[in-house]
Amino acid sequence: MPDLLVKCMAVLTMDGEEDIIRDGEIAVRGDKIYHVGQAGSTPGDFQPERVLEYPGMVAMPGFVNCHTHAAMTLLRGYADDLPLMQWLREKIWPLEEHLTPEDIYYGTLLCCAEMIRGGTTTFADMYFAMEQVAQAVDESGMRAVLSRGMIGLGPNADKAMEESRAFIARWQGGAGGRVTTMFGPHAPYTCPPEYLQKVMSAAQELGVGIHIHLAETAGEVREIKEKYGKSPVALMEEIGLFALGLPVLAAHCVHLDDNDVAILARRRVGIAHNPQSNMKLASGVAPVSRLLEAGAVVGLGTDGAASNNNLDMLEEMRAAALLQKVHTGDATALPAYTALRMATAEGARVLGLGDRIGRIKPGLQADIILLDMRQPHLYPLFDLYAHVAYAAASSDVHTVIIDGKVVMENRRILTLDEEAVLDQAQRAAEALLRRKEVRGNG
Amino acid sequence: MPDLLVKCMAVLTMDGEEDIIRDGEIAVRGDKIYHVGQAGSTPGDFQPERVLEYPGMVAMPGFVNCHTHAAMTLLRGYADDLPLMQWLREKIWPLEEHLTPEDIYYGTLLCCAEMIRGGTTTFADMYFAMEQVAQAVDESGMRAVLSRGMIGLGPNADKAMEESRAFIARWQGGAGGRVTTMFGPHAPYTCPPEYLQKVMSAAQELGVGIHIHLAETAGEVREIKEKYGKSPVALMEEIGLFALGLPVLAAHCVHLDDNDVAILARRRVGIAHNPQSNMKLASGVAPVSRLLEAGAVVGLGTDGAASNNNLDMLEEMRAAALLQKVHTGDATALPAYTALRMATAEGARVLGLGDRIGRIKPGLQADIILLDMRQPHLYPLFDLYAHVAYAAASSDVHTVIIDGKVVMENRRILTLDEEAVLDQAQRAAEALLRRKEVRGNG
Repeated sequence: MPDLLVKCMAVLTMDGEEDIIRDGEIAVRGDKIYHVGQAGSTPGDFQPERVLEYPGMVAMPGFVNCHTHAAMTLLRGYADDLPLMQWLREKIWPLEEHLTPEDIYYGTLLCCAEMIRGGTTTFADMYFAMEQVAQAVDESGMRAVLSRGMIGLGPNADKAMEESRAFIARWQGGAGGRVTTMFGPHAPYTCPPEYLQKVMSAAQELGVGIHIHLAETAGEVREIKEKYGKSPVALMEEIGLFALGLPVLAAHCVHLDDNDVAILARRRVGIAHNPQSNMKLASGVAPVSRLLEAGAVVGLGTDGAASNNNLDMLEEMRAAALLQKVHTGDATALPAYTALRMATAEGARVLGLGDRIGRIKPGLQADIILLDMRQPHLYPLFDLYAHVAYAAASSDVHTVIIDGKVVMENRRILTLDEEAVLDQAQRAAEALLRRKEVRGNG
Repeated sequence: MPDLLVKCMAVLTMDGEEDIIRDGEIAVRGDKIYHVGQAGSTPGDFQPERVLEYPGMVAMPGFVNCHTHAAMTLLRGYADDLPLMQWLREKIWPLEEHLTPEDIYYGTLLCCAEMIRGGTTTFADMYFAMEQVAQAVDESGMRAVLSRGMIGLGPNADKAMEESRAFIARWQGGAGGRVTTMFGPHAPYTCPPEYLQKVMSAAQELGVGIHIHLAETAGEVREIKEKYGKSPVALMEEIGLFALGLPVLAAHCVHLDDNDVAILARRRVGIAHNPQSNMKLASGVAPVSRLLEAGAVVGLGTDGAASNNNLDMLEEMRAAALLQKVHTGDATALPAYTALRMATAEGARVLGLGDRIGRIKPGLQADIILLDMRQPHLYPLFDLYAHVAYAAASSDVHTVIIDGKVVMENRRILTLDEEAVLDQAQRAAEALLRRKEVRGNG
């Protein structure tokens, strides 16, 4: 990789609210950030092979999408305006049964194309056929934390465990370090404690984290309380999930009591807040302000494209901030900088990657995006945090650098053939619907 | 204006949920829609001077932004994360005092550039220096319903009335019919009943509608109830505001009781729902589902860019749908087609223009946008309503036609010098801040 020097209007390092560097530059050596500072401050021994000089742009860390199901892009717009369980049982699960590994490969490529275009450089995925997911991530140049979704009830519980182990053995640290892995037990209501304990042992043995859905709907909390006499969070605490010394990535955490909030904060559980999915499925509003006050680690996720319906982290950040304000009745809740932190540095912490990505800081991996501020909706140029959090659009993302490599420039993705990705996804989706019609459900 | 034939993947006429015309075409003669139907269905006597052939695009009516303060683009990002009254009193009003008519002209041009790029073809504005606003609208090629904001308390009440009368006399039906006007009494808490009655008489005399803020915050409702013993909506009903036989455009309508909902529905008051502004200022959640059930006429607005912080109707539509779902706990609330109707045909009704714009229908004004569906975030191509409502972005708007004239094509605005608009806005905003610093507040 050629060493790069990025010069721009301002660098939002996301390493402190005051840490905006006007007329800034970032030196990238290999896959890492070597230096960040004002124009001309890079040490003289750094000789970039390329200079990206964009005086009208803002540089910041790439967005970290903490929870998605990448290949569900193929199901985008297939079923809308339904509540979670009906949507899953009547629409999504019956169609997913007909997904092939090849479909998942094409769906993940589509996801990567969309995310790169929106400035996302890292995502956490839970799905199946993860070999194909990892291949697509590798080709796209993205960074990802991948987990094979595991259902602990029914005939495939053991198979899920075996496949997860094999996938982790093969891909942990893969794609030049851009792919890391986790176990992916789906949720407490689909993975009983005994199964989760097996997963926990395996995670400790292999030294990887755990990605789980937690407290997404009121119905789930009711079901777990009836069965175990405690909330999903308290149940996970009881079985020791949060005490492994490994990252735990808990998606949603919508329905929490005070004890749950205290547990999640004390245990530094990585929480993926998915406001648009929670809104669209009418699941509820996660108590993000209370979680942040308690010191919890909260990032943002889009969830899958079938319940969102895009993978746009700028939209997600905006939805998070606006929803928390109106829900708490406090317009000062979740201000712009906090929302931006959640989409970057906090998201990295949620994935257990806080010392590797999420900020513009020497020594961290060079995951950098450039936003072109020369847009009517971003003028006049006052508060840059407010502009990015409340006014910017995905289409403002001009250039994306991941692991020191320019993956998109001037809105052209350099790692993927975008036209082919769209056509393959369309063909795969049409064939999927035909298979479902011919063979029926199940 | 040359007659146009628009050919596209599908026409969403917004004149009925089943009324999607695949492989469709729209014939535009002069400023009006002459014909819409399947490819080849246009009568042979129609000889277009230009054919816009875009097989990868969806055509639909332009968006109708029912409530904004256009020139507040100049204050975008100036003050954020504050509740309404503190934001107004401490930040916005003191700065607005230093706005010049020239500032308002440049701010409105910036607003028009942003709105055209996002597919908005009509907006309803309430501000001051409306002569300059109307000039900017005229130049931009947009359609607008303009009202001079009136405060009925204090020394400028009579001046506001005189200026409103003069403005309406001069601009009603101006810009080739693209500009219409309303009176703009700010709100019941700034315009007492006696003043409103004067406004109502003048409106009847001149035959124009009334644009007012109504029931935006809980504090406003409390204040009015203490003073008059009834809610703002009931007070307006009592003084006869809704019985003039003229359009009444009521912005916000967040805090409503059952009686208010019944009044607004029965009187066919045009309601501008501004979800993102209401969320950002923590004003509350308007009971849109209840209003729609009662048969009320509800459109969408962005409010000003200082409380949003953009003028993006696709975002607004999405926020409206998602917010209503999570707020009511019903994922079927405000489905995709309903949200799209609110952004188009219902918005037109809100402005009293339901028989002129808002649908693709022969005889209506030709306000048409083309969305380029060839985007990763819009693939695969399943439900087009869901794609536009839940996944599309402003940057997908490729072409904008207003009153039969191509105003933007391939994302280049043909009516304005965009670069000059940005630079003028930046200079105006910087000079405004300097004036405030030098002269202080007031």
